[in-house]
Amino acid sequence: MSTPALPDFAARHIGPRESDIETMLGVVGAGSLAELVDKAVPSGIRAAGELDVQAAASEQAVVAELREVAARNRVVTSLIGLGYYGTVTPAVVQRNVLENPAWYTAYTPYQPEISQGRLEALLNFQTVVSDLTGLAVAGASLLDEATAAAEAMTLMRRGSKVAADAVLLVDRNVFPQTLAVVRTRALPLGLEVVEADLEGVDSVEALRAAAGDRDVFGVLVQYPGLDGSLRDHRALADAAHEAGAVVTASADLLALTLATPPGEWGADIAVGTTQRFGVPMGFGGPHAGYMSVRQGLERTLPGRLVGVSVDADGAPAYRLALQTREQHIRREKATSNICTAQVLLAVMASMYAVHHGPEGLRAIALRVHGHASALAAALRSGGYDLGDAPFFDTLAVRAPGEAERLVAACLAEGVNVWRRDDDTVLVSLDETTDLVVLGKVCRGFGVEAPGRVEVAAPAWPGSFARTSDYLTHPVFSAHRSETAMLRYLRRLADRDFALDRGMIPLGSCTMKLNATTEMVAVTWPEFAALHPFAPHEQTRGIRGLVDELSSWLCEITGYDAVSLQPNAGSQGELAGLLAIAAYHRAAGDHERRICLIPSSAHGTNAASAVMAGMKVVVVGTDPSSGNVDMDDLAAKVEQHRDTLAAIMVTYPSTHGVFEDTITDLCAMVHDAGGQVYVDGANLNALVGVARPGRFGADVSHLNLHKTFCIPHGGGGPGVGPVACREHLAPFLPNHPLDADAGPETGVGPISAAPYGSAGILPISWAYVRLMGGAGLTRATEVAVLSANYVAARLREAFPVLYAGHGGLVAHECILDLRGITKETGVTVDDVAKRLIDHGFHAPTMSFPVAGTLMVEPTESEDLGELDRFCDAMLAIRREIDEVAQGTVDVADSALRHAPHTAECLTADWDHPYDRRTAAYPDGVDAASKYWPPVRRIDGAYGDRNLVCSCPTPEAFED
Amino acid sequence: MSTPALPDFAARHIGPRESDIETMLGVVGAGSLAELVDKAVPSGIRAAGELDVQAAASEQAVVAELREVAARNRVVTSLIGLGYYGTVTPAVVQRNVLENPAWYTAYTPYQPEISQGRLEALLNFQTVVSDLTGLAVAGASLLDEATAAAEAMTLMRRGSKVAADAVLLVDRNVFPQTLAVVRTRALPLGLEVVEADLEGVDSVEALRAAAGDRDVFGVLVQYPGLDGSLRDHRALADAAHEAGAVVTASADLLALTLATPPGEWGADIAVGTTQRFGVPMGFGGPHAGYMSVRQGLERTLPGRLVGVSVDADGAPAYRLALQTREQHIRREKATSNICTAQVLLAVMASMYAVHHGPEGLRAIALRVHGHASALAAALRSGGYDLGDAPFFDTLAVRAPGEAERLVAACLAEGVNVWRRDDDTVLVSLDETTDLVVLGKVCRGFGVEAPGRVEVAAPAWPGSFARTSDYLTHPVFSAHRSETAMLRYLRRLADRDFALDRGMIPLGSCTMKLNATTEMVAVTWPEFAALHPFAPHEQTRGIRGLVDELSSWLCEITGYDAVSLQPNAGSQGELAGLLAIAAYHRAAGDHERRICLIPSSAHGTNAASAVMAGMKVVVVGTDPSSGNVDMDDLAAKVEQHRDTLAAIMVTYPSTHGVFEDTITDLCAMVHDAGGQVYVDGANLNALVGVARPGRFGADVSHLNLHKTFCIPHGGGGPGVGPVACREHLAPFLPNHPLDADAGPETGVGPISAAPYGSAGILPISWAYVRLMGGAGLTRATEVAVLSANYVAARLREAFPVLYAGHGGLVAHECILDLRGITKETGVTVDDVAKRLIDHGFHAPTMSFPVAGTLMVEPTESEDLGELDRFCDAMLAIRREIDEVAQGTVDVADSALRHAPHTAECLTADWDHPYDRRTAAYPDGVDAASKYWPPVRRIDGAYGDRNLVCSCPTPEAFED
Repeated sequence: MSTPALPDFAARHIGPRESDIETMLGVVGAGSLAELVDKAVPSGIRAAGELDVQAAASEQAVVAELREVAARNRVVTSLIGLGYYGTVTPAVVQRNVLENPAWYTAYTPYQPEISQGRLEALLNFQTVVSDLTGLAVAGASLLDEATAAAEAMTLMRRGSKVAADAVLLVDRNVFPQTLAVVRTRALPLGLEVVEADLEGVDSVEALRAAAGDRDVFGVLVQYPGLDGSLRDHRALADAAHEAGAVVTASADLLALTLATPPGEWGADIAVGTTQRFGVPMGFGGPHAGYMSVRQGLERTLPGRLVGVSVDADGAPAYRLALQTREQHIRREKATSNICTAQVLLAVMASMYAVHHGPEGLRAIALRVHGHASALAAALRSGGYDLGDAPFFDTLAVRAPGEAERLVAACLAEGVNVWRRDDDTVLVSLDETTDLVVLGKVCRGFGVEAPGRVEVAAPAWPGSFARTSDYLTHPVFSAHRSETAMLRYLRRLADRDFALDRGMIPLGSCTMKLNATTEMVAVTWPEFAALHPFAPHEQTRGIRGLVDELSSWLCEITGYDAVSLQPNAGSQGELAGLLAIAAYHRAAGDHERRICLIPSSAHGTNAASAVMAGMKVVVVGTDPSSGNVDMDDLAAKVEQHRDTLAAIMVTYPSTHGVFEDTITDLCAMVHDAGGQVYVDGANLNALVGVARPGRFGADVSHLNLHKTFCIPHGGGGPGVGPVACREHLAPFLPNHPLDADAGPETGVGPISAAPYGSAGILPISWAYVRLMGGAGLTRATEVAVLSANYVAARLREAFPVLYAGHGGLVAHECILDLRGITKETGVTVDDVAKRLIDHGFHAPTMSFPVAGTLMVEPTESEDLGELDRFCDAMLAIRREIDEVAQGTVDVADSALRHAPHTAECLTADWDHPYDRRTAAYPDGVDAASKYWPPVRRIDGAYGDRNLVCSCPTPEAFED
Repeated sequence: MSTPALPDFAARHIGPRESDIETMLGVVGAGSLAELVDKAVPSGIRAAGELDVQAAASEQAVVAELREVAARNRVVTSLIGLGYYGTVTPAVVQRNVLENPAWYTAYTPYQPEISQGRLEALLNFQTVVSDLTGLAVAGASLLDEATAAAEAMTLMRRGSKVAADAVLLVDRNVFPQTLAVVRTRALPLGLEVVEADLEGVDSVEALRAAAGDRDVFGVLVQYPGLDGSLRDHRALADAAHEAGAVVTASADLLALTLATPPGEWGADIAVGTTQRFGVPMGFGGPHAGYMSVRQGLERTLPGRLVGVSVDADGAPAYRLALQTREQHIRREKATSNICTAQVLLAVMASMYAVHHGPEGLRAIALRVHGHASALAAALRSGGYDLGDAPFFDTLAVRAPGEAERLVAACLAEGVNVWRRDDDTVLVSLDETTDLVVLGKVCRGFGVEAPGRVEVAAPAWPGSFARTSDYLTHPVFSAHRSETAMLRYLRRLADRDFALDRGMIPLGSCTMKLNATTEMVAVTWPEFAALHPFAPHEQTRGIRGLVDELSSWLCEITGYDAVSLQPNAGSQGELAGLLAIAAYHRAAGDHERRICLIPSSAHGTNAASAVMAGMKVVVVGTDPSSGNVDMDDLAAKVEQHRDTLAAIMVTYPSTHGVFEDTITDLCAMVHDAGGQVYVDGANLNALVGVARPGRFGADVSHLNLHKTFCIPHGGGGPGVGPVACREHLAPFLPNHPLDADAGPETGVGPISAAPYGSAGILPISWAYVRLMGGAGLTRATEVAVLSANYVAARLREAFPVLYAGHGGLVAHECILDLRGITKETGVTVDDVAKRLIDHGFHAPTMSFPVAGTLMVEPTESEDLGELDRFCDAMLAIRREIDEVAQGTVDVADSALRHAPHTAECLTADWDHPYDRRTAAYPDGVDAASKYWPPVRRIDGAYGDRNLVCSCPTPEAFED
């Protein structure tokens, strides 16, 4: 049809206008975008022809298509449980967090001075988890309950001194997907998992017997159990401790408002999900998993931990604790590969607790329990056997041979319940359950519905009733009205710098536009209210969207198959490596365990290799070019020819260069029987230009949150699909509860939910649909142009460390400050913090090369913003020059004192620069000035004095 | 059912907790809320029993009910036109303006220092209107196209020197609702309106002939016309000017991107709607109406006008121009009663222009015109007669006797078109029209659909083609990417202070919580996409909601009937007075034209009375009590006994007092044959406590944006229903195009749309539904408590001017600064601006008594915020004391220099107070500090140097 196009989305996604592109090409010295890309990208890997995805549609058309997709889902009240529950997102939280770009476009809080808002929210999250589980220290979120349990497994292994061949003992009452993920993760690490019925196990002997007469390093129980029963695990925990094992409870936070917390009955670790704290089910995710540990284990926690420290003026300030970048991702010594977590969802869950407070949470729990009790009475009156264990929200209904019929009968009434086995049906109630829902369930079971529900403290044996306080910090009672809550959310958001304020030029992190139209469907009930284990006929829309997005990703990457299950890049990496390992095993190559990794790789690469049971061998890089040292590679390949499993490389490289040796590299590794893993972190430089699956790679993970517009959310959610060629496809992840979610021959689940963070896949689907093939390719071209423009403008002031063909970089460039630091003492930190005064988030610091800044502008920044950034960097260079010339002492320079708060302007002033220079360097627009709420933070102080839950208000007094 | 309630919405709406209420009662000296209200409210007017509205439902239940209401509407593509068109709200604007509390909870920008963001947006709006219409000065929005035309009528009358009995000549091609509103407004003013076919009128003689040989003071034409035709009005305009008349064009802004603007063919005034600039139709509103005028008429513009002035540091700053409060509302000399306008919608429309820029708007217009041309060709090929006038987007299809059948045939295809008369069908295309829609229309008309659409400059005669530039200011080309647009919206929002930052304790304006749940339905397509003239069977849901809300408002006010049509409080007032006037006329009392108004009344009261053709007689107030002077009232009633039409009083009074003479007052006026109008501005002190319709009043308007939670939007939208007793019900507004919208005997339409701003009625509906009778009453009680709490805490520092029973105020209190000013020179302005430094919006200044501040905390502020405000006021009092004691000179005090920007801290400092005191008085939390972007603004400078469109960027250079 020849209807003229509506205003083109691609032109809104891409920052520079046509005329700006001409200007930029002039500065870079290329005649056209095509010429630039031809120059920058090795011809051997250039893809021919346009991407074969659907032609771009207008924003309105895409929203209309999404409405059609949504209409193919059917929202049924799900009482399936298993870690996913109906919940009510407080409207004020939905609008002002989940739908607010100030929260969702933020980056991981590595620059704590401009992240105090979300750091406070995460500290609240940690306090919620720590208080409710009764354990001393909680982390700032993990990916989901099942992977949190897998992380607990390795933590228990590290924390136990029993023999190396000891096993992990998992209670039969643990969620099936949790057990399955634990098994997936245990296998490559050589850890054995034994499932057993741990009821009544109360001695070391009984424990060993349950483990098949093996030593036990860890015990994992669900609390309350899969069957809903609340059991007293005190004796089990005592026995486990006596046997030298560590104990983990996978616990439901809502239940813990009423039940004795794990920390009080002897668990060392608690894990779980915070989904039911106001985060929609979203067909499985994203939700924030959690982990808390007893005193003494905090320094071994995987994932991120927020702590309290002080700033340069001695005021309390938050920052990520205990990490030099990521303390647990120590390459070949890694204890975990988790990096991106679930910050946005953790913030939501924490705000649910702030919104309801301790009394409100308890009231919700009592209401849920009251409904469960009423249902139990009705079912028992109708003759059903529910056992006699105490329960919180879940009933296991015994109905020999009848489970399938009863599930169908309930569905006919409009309610999903869960067929545990032929003879047992599980019904899990939640915050949204009311008498209407109970009526439906009762009709399904053919019993008389209760006419009323009593709300009273549970009639549990005394050992279960919680007696300890929780959420006693004032933040959980200060914001009870919606007005107060709204203002709290605004105040926190205002302390932070996100994409809605300015550029976040983070090398390797691709902070591009997260368009509103891409985001709108996320909160539609047709996507948000789906249970991941709902019957397939209720989820046709989202399954179709998964299929379509998968096929587009295959087209874009040149691979043959993709799994969207990994819910972070790190999990995608692990899945890819597990596929390689399984492929070698299937070929009988049991010895192929060496994984070559260039020294410049992302830390997660090596960590994932360790998690996949591989042995990391580092390949050097050429110091002058930064490229993989092909001679060293050849030597290492030769050395490990018989045991070579894989090589992991990033392309374009982590140095931001299109290495022209990539095809040789692939061939060399293949010749030796190895597989080639290309890390997709830098795919934003390849889309439409080159396809890893066609230039020699076997498998990659992508980051939908880098390349495909899922917002970073302040450090998650992420989605890390793994894509591979046909021969690896049989070894992609699958899922025990969803046969469609992966190959039967797969490596098991890598995430709790069959499709991982399915709830946010509409974002990436919409991006591809809005851009079309031509738009996607154009975005890549402009991303490359913008990086080269920045490099060209800054090259004289700051050496650009590496470049490829024709002196061109790919989509990012490294500014080398090492000479400057040596000469003047001005560090990358000084430059990064001074950029805050200019109103910028710093580039990536000291990665991949210490003492450098890596800048990735992305295609979404317009020329005005690129120039504002370059001008700021040049102004900083002039300040550096003053230090170099001896005019200013670095120790008392604006660089070293940066960032400057508004408050510091009111203090006495005896610096060699004036207040205006401090606050408005180089003519920063006063009316648009971003003010950091704290000055430079002393991270080391906080690590020495670890405080990881909310500090008392007194701590903030002057 | 006995299901325990979910967390109670009323407890989220009301700020103070139960324990806080105890504390506050203690300070006020009352034992309970009931006792307090019994003390404060005269027993004679106390309502007995609970309000009979539905019991409160949970937020989720209310949203579910709204979904059901929405499902009873049917969204059909509407090509009806008549001022309402399909449009695409840019997603980034919808999310970040319409759904962002930073924009929608803001107040009217009377405090310009904390309103620079929305003032800039409004200045953009004025620039858009001025540029597109080709007229020198545009105002910052009016209520809708029809009322704007009515305002133009009076402006033309004022601007014309012809005889007093001259008429307004309205072209037959003007929208019917516009003509009807003009007639409604003309009648009470004694202005005569003559409708005539003005085609070909090109001489004074022809003009007079068209007017029935009468003098003509004004000419109103539609451009393009109702029938879609673009006509050349140059000769008409020349003739009108020669005859001493003023010319107004009601013009479509989108058409003006292609067609010669009215200012270039001789119109003196342009009016219209900006709805199709990205504002949803919303079943008729709210949308921003506009007016622009040629040089020389700007000082007579009704409504608000934003202009550029300078701040105390000489920097450019925006503020409302040409008004001491509202320059056109000069009580008995008023030229208009408009007060609240449509700021939020004007912001949206302006941002649509910023988003698309001049090229984008032109492209949209060309696309619309291209589709219209293709449709015209198809219809002509099918044998239909369309006349031969040039058109933009609307076709008048002649089909003698066939109109009804064709409308039905199109509807069967899923498209609404308009039956103009038996023989003519109108089809108006818009931005959303595509070939699919054209196909439906063509099937409806039985002609072959076009296969393609050509987009080209219109083939109009040269006289129509626009040659002048528009939107050349950089703001209309700087924000073309979504990233840039998002940041622009954020930057502007960050300059402003709205309810999401802190309390706005504005006496008489009731700035209470606008809960998210109340807001969510507004943007659902089932409400947003309805055309106001769509067939009734498509709008059952919203009509049912109108009925239900109306019945609740009757229950709450004690009246018998209500009209939701008035789209602002001022229009509600006018409607109420017109009802009174019509009632007297119907009773043969043609001489009853006197309207008594206490001297303390809102300025709009008198202005509305003037608009209603009444003569204002002021009744004095007792200087000591502030109450209506009953003796003076008795005298005035006696004096005007035969001509008394009405009294207008506010209850509780504008002094914030429950006067116990109200029942006597009503009786006295009734005895004299007059009617009692109770202004509902202060209804927030009455809901559930007393009912005007039962204590003697005959009619009131309510402000849904004050009492019923519609957000103020920075100065609109408002909704001002008029409610009355049975005898006045036959004289409520009605509508020529919707027989259900009012009584057949009604006074005509008061707004363009049958139900006014119907699109936001779900907000108030949800409020009542969420609160229930008990919750609404409780809100009133707490509002009264909070005002008395503030009065009690501040009384010693600032005299509380008036009080009623037992020394109690109603829901607001007046702090009298006159003594302080006299003693120290510290003015209310100084206090108001110093409050900005403390992070507050000032209370209402100098209304109703000059030299005072009126504080209305509302029930939604929690005790913490009330105390923060009181503490700030007490800190200010201490600063005043320093002036009183001679320690500090007022001229160099922090009070006089307030507000302090962050930037001013960087300047040299030689004030008697230090920088910290300037910026963080009384320990203001630095991390949460709100910084005004400018210092105190010199309004007079701007009025002397009037600039009302975007200043050049150079103006902002240092």
